[in-house]
Amino acid sequence: MEVINRYITIKHHVDGAPQDSDFELKSSPLSLSLEPGSDEVIVKNLYVSIDPYQLNRMKSYSSSQESSAYAVAITPGEDIDAYGVGKVVASGNPKFDKGDIVSGLLKWGEFTVVKPGGMLNKLDPMGFPLSYHAGILAFSGLTAYAGLFEICKPKKGEKVFVSAALGSVGNLVGQFAKVFGCYVVGCAGSKEKVALLKEKLGFDDAFNYREETDLKSTLRRYFPDGIDIYFDNVGGDMQEAAVSNMNINGRIAVCGVISEYTDREKRAAPSMIDVVYKRIKIQGFLAGDYLNLFGDFLSTTCDHLRTGKIQPLEDISEGVESIPSALINLFRGQNIGKKIIKIAEQ
Amino acid sequence: MEVINRYITIKHHVDGAPQDSDFELKSSPLSLSLEPGSDEVIVKNLYVSIDPYQLNRMKSYSSSQESSAYAVAITPGEDIDAYGVGKVVASGNPKFDKGDIVSGLLKWGEFTVVKPGGMLNKLDPMGFPLSYHAGILAFSGLTAYAGLFEICKPKKGEKVFVSAALGSVGNLVGQFAKVFGCYVVGCAGSKEKVALLKEKLGFDDAFNYREETDLKSTLRRYFPDGIDIYFDNVGGDMQEAAVSNMNINGRIAVCGVISEYTDREKRAAPSMIDVVYKRIKIQGFLAGDYLNLFGDFLSTTCDHLRTGKIQPLEDISEGVESIPSALINLFRGQNIGKKIIKIAEQ
Ligand SMILES: NC(=O)c1ccc[n+]([C@@H]2O[C@H](COP(=O)([O-])OP(=O)(O)OC[C@H]3O[C@@H](n4cnc5c(N)ncnc54)[C@H](OP(=O)(O)O)[C@@H]3O)[C@@H](O)[C@H]2O)c1
Ligand SMILES: NC(=O)c1ccc[n+]([C@@H]2O[C@H](COP(=O)([O-])OP(=O)(O)OC[C@H]3O[C@@H](n4cnc5c(N)ncnc54)[C@H](OP(=O)(O)O)[C@@H]3O)[C@@H](O)[C@H]2O)c1
Repeated sequence: MEVINRYITIKHHVDGAPQDSDFELKSSPLSLSLEPGSDEVIVKNLYVSIDPYQLNRMKSYSSSQESSAYAVAITPGEDIDAYGVGKVVASGNPKFDKGDIVSGLLKWGEFTVVKPGGMLNKLDPMGFPLSYHAGILAFSGLTAYAGLFEICKPKKGEKVFVSAALGSVGNLVGQFAKVFGCYVVGCAGSKEKVALLKEKLGFDDAFNYREETDLKSTLRRYFPDGIDIYFDNVGGDMQEAAVSNMNINGRIAVCGVISEYTDREKRAAPSMIDVVYKRIKIQGFLAGDYLNLFGDFLSTTCDHLRTGKIQPLEDISEGVESIPSALINLFRGQNIGKKIIKIAEQ
Repeated sequence: MEVINRYITIKHHVDGAPQDSDFELKSSPLSLSLEPGSDEVIVKNLYVSIDPYQLNRMKSYSSSQESSAYAVAITPGEDIDAYGVGKVVASGNPKFDKGDIVSGLLKWGEFTVVKPGGMLNKLDPMGFPLSYHAGILAFSGLTAYAGLFEICKPKKGEKVFVSAALGSVGNLVGQFAKVFGCYVVGCAGSKEKVALLKEKLGFDDAFNYREETDLKSTLRRYFPDGIDIYFDNVGGDMQEAAVSNMNINGRIAVCGVISEYTDREKRAAPSMIDVVYKRIKIQGFLAGDYLNLFGDFLSTTCDHLRTGKIQPLEDISEGVESIPSALINLFRGQNIGKKIIKIAEQ
């Protein structure tokens, strides 16, 4: 059987904020039956993840493209890989059978042809919606878990600040930290988000950074006793303001710097005098280095979901054609929680 | 017996680069015999240490003044404490006897009256000149040792970059790293210093940063395979250039940022995209937190000095009146190795 596989690509490199005109929906015929002897797996994509780092892959150059196997440059015109959940429609690989639900590195498209060695695993949904396995129970969750517990090593009662706090990673950092026994304040870009943080997710406090003019004094207001841990999703001014409000032995997990992704000139210039005298640690990390924690992370998170200690927060759009606007909207703060595209029904 | 104790003070806060006119040599009478029942110790100062951080203490405000007991603000007109070596001339404290050689927190002056609870210890010179115990075998050495081994955790063969490499801390970082088996490049501010680094101290390579126009490409030239460890003494542009040349899992010990001490506006703005994707750690530290390592540090360093694996590098001026210019010259790169003032003969 042959289908028309529709997928998203970039028309050219994208060096500023992404726009509709940067993307193209392409289609090409795809045979769903494999050649005899093929060791490939054909996956029908069900859910794919939308993540800010994809923009760094789209740039004509970013040092990030050299530093991680997941972050390699995207070639204009070619299909784009992304984490997701799918269903096997044909398999020449003895580890997979037709009908298997799988997760791994799929494509921003309707189907993925996974070559041997590609990242693909059978998925046990454990009673949770499949979409969870593209977000909260996958890399977004692991990022929050590893960044908070391995990089920041919180102690009960410590004061934690999270930026992009209603985003996919941020909301979980805050929730994990609350369950662990920390005092947690988040920031986000709208009144509505602030209300959600406080009312739905149980953050101790939250503020809308767009309404603030002097972030340094804003943080002093929210943390009169200083910040012990800053989980940085945004970089730029917010990181500088956090550094100047850190306590002695403060830790900053630099998870991402989304405010710097769309603007090459933008840089955080944290006070290094503070870094020295307050013995601050500023540590970058990639979740992919912490796969050894995946088992722990998964069982902890599933427990918290079942007992209601953690709320899942998903923002799902439908159809491959909605991928570009979903990515674009991350940079406009128009997602609430994990942004996922539902490509097809199971 | 009464003497005239001469000591250095600042006339007013010092907010830019220090100048002669900021300082004053004061004198006041001091009785060298203690009142009956006094628990003080009177020390005749022999060697005192000259350190860049003193400038941060002299500022009208620096966040550093709040973050460490050693870094508290200096009040204009008052005497200034500094690490040093001295000889007890009178003691009401049963732990010390007249004639004891001691080290601890003394004054930038000819005598120190140490109150109970002050930092003072009997010193066993172990056959080394007393001046060593104000520098290489004291905080300068511990700073290099703790920063390199505890913060950066080098592996044999790793590539190490040190700035202010002919300074008190920097020269030891480079020498420790060489003995440990790393590849070491240093930078300093003159041709003569570069020659000393390569010829006398055994650095693998060295350069004069004042002759370079694009530090990022300079570092690429000296580290074609990237930097694993950057021991940062200067901050600013050099830190930025180092970050962009770091390898994956690179570590930066932020020991000090001397280029930022004299200029409030000056800031390092390292690429946080590099920090994330290359999983870089930027860690501030203070040697005072690593007193638990002092025993290890001391025995290792003494061994290396005895076997000639490490060269001591001291820059000694004489007399209390030379203290201001000694401090001023640190910020002009006019010291070679540990800057110490010899206040008096034993
Ligand atoms: N290190 C890793 O392994 C790893 C893994 C996953 C993600 N990340 C990073 O983690 C961060 C969050 O990713 P995510 O997937 O959870 O995305 P997300 O937070 O769900 O979405 C991005 C959010 O960032 C905020 N934002 C966008 N532009 C901004 C700007 N200029 N200034 C401040 N905030 C801005 C927006 O929320 P508001 O403006 O409303 O706050 C937006 O909703 C990103 O930097 C990403 O690259 C790192
Ligand atoms: N964290 C701690 O516990 C601790 C303890 C001791 C010292 N420190 C810090 O370590 C650093 C070195 O201290 P040290 O005692 O060893 O001093 P030092 O290196 O002996 O003397 C300072 C040297 O810094 C260089 N320098 C001065 N101004 C500079 C500028 N604007 N840009 C670049 N380099 C400049 C000069 O050498 P060249 O210009 O010729 O290279 C000068 O000789 C300082 O930042 C200090 O605050 C930290």
